[in-house]
Amino acid sequence: MITSHKPRAVCLVSGGLDSCVSAAIAEETCRLAFLHVTYGQRTEKRELKAFRAIADHYRVQERLETSISYLREIGGSALTDRRIAVPPGNPAREGIPATYVPFRNTHLIAIAVSWAEVLGARFIYIGATEMDSSGYPDCRATYFQAYNRLIEEGTKPGTSIRIVTPLLHLDKAGVVREGIKRAAPLHLTWSCYAQEDAACGRCDSCLLRLKGFREAGAEDPIQYSTKYSTKT
Amino acid sequence: MITSHKPRAVCLVSGGLDSCVSAAIAEETCRLAFLHVTYGQRTEKRELKAFRAIADHYRVQERLETSISYLREIGGSALTDRRIAVPPGNPAREGIPATYVPFRNTHLIAIAVSWAEVLGARFIYIGATEMDSSGYPDCRATYFQAYNRLIEEGTKPGTSIRIVTPLLHLDKAGVVREGIKRAAPLHLTWSCYAQEDAACGRCDSCLLRLKGFREAGAEDPIQYSTKYSTKT
Repeated sequence: MITSHKPRAVCLVSGGLDSCVSAAIAEETCRLAFLHVTYGQRTEKRELKAFRAIADHYRVQERLETSISYLREIGGSALTDRRIAVPPGNPAREGIPATYVPFRNTHLIAIAVSWAEVLGARFIYIGATEMDSSGYPDCRATYFQAYNRLIEEGTKPGTSIRIVTPLLHLDKAGVVREGIKRAAPLHLTWSCYAQEDAACGRCDSCLLRLKGFREAGAEDPIQYSTKYSTKT
Repeated sequence: MITSHKPRAVCLVSGGLDSCVSAAIAEETCRLAFLHVTYGQRTEKRELKAFRAIADHYRVQERLETSISYLREIGGSALTDRRIAVPPGNPAREGIPATYVPFRNTHLIAIAVSWAEVLGARFIYIGATEMDSSGYPDCRATYFQAYNRLIEEGTKPGTSIRIVTPLLHLDKAGVVREGIKRAAPLHLTWSCYAQEDAACGRCDSCLLRLKGFREAGAEDPIQYSTKYSTKT
């Protein structure tokens, strides 16, 4: 029997581009455990399909698929509240977008920490990006620093769990390049906030993704429902 | 129409003694919103009943009852994992008890913060006690300080939400005295970890509660299934 001495990492894998590339980076030094959380977002079935495809690609045994229904009950975001429209994208505009889910990453990471404590995992990988985060406050370096401090305070003595954010200072083109370099299965990922069959090509998330591939000089391998402009 | 200018507080109300007294303190200066979270603990139905009775007592309109099933899926605690026995109580012993749920308070407070952001609430009241917390790491002052920092970093600019821990430095007798002083409905609360019909009188939580009433020179108004010792 071969025993791996690599540390274990819990990877938060939404099924999107960033989390796929983050997992590809974790895979180089860690044994992977994949966590997927649905929270009532519009495209949750499509994202779960992407999660499973990426987990299969990396032959991940330890998987946890769970849901936090209360974010929909709480509401307040176009991503989870059907009464608030997903606005047409304009990633460069100022302020917090309507797709902001209050304090969302805190919930996702808290689940990862509880699971990591039980699994004995050392790291939590999250594909957050500060630059292209559309102004979400829970995607900034200072937020993750504060969270690492909270983990030190809130877990059992002797526990060592740290959040790792390998993409934090990359723009979307940088994420695409990192993914291509590591042969990450980008064709299995899903980013669209609005549709589940083919990506809409118009929401914030699609526009950022397309811009990233364009700037990285690469073709996005997923299917779009509309002809999109290749101009910046 | 009378408009209250009191700030709103989200109170985490498990249905136990501490959360009831914490809410009684919040009620003096705030409009109340009550949050109850079940997480697969053994006595969750009984705790929910206590939550509703306390909410009715304070005529709370804003209520959120939700569940986080993933803590049971993750396991690792006698409170949520049926394969781990609840040990007979000995509150004075060292170390983290088997009833510890990894990082539990982080999840509960994260829900409260998301809800507070949507409601426009200013405070989150939690009845955590450092002294009688059985060694849970997520009940210490340094933990809540770190969490307040995370809230500052992880919420929208202009949001001001703070965790308030009015019982943090009290022992259980002090909590009982605070409750009696404010006419908190202690007869509606539930603390037992092991049973749902009458309190067992033997688990950690029952022993602490009984000791608290004894030291406060008061009679515990709830029913116990066993004759318990009044000796210290």
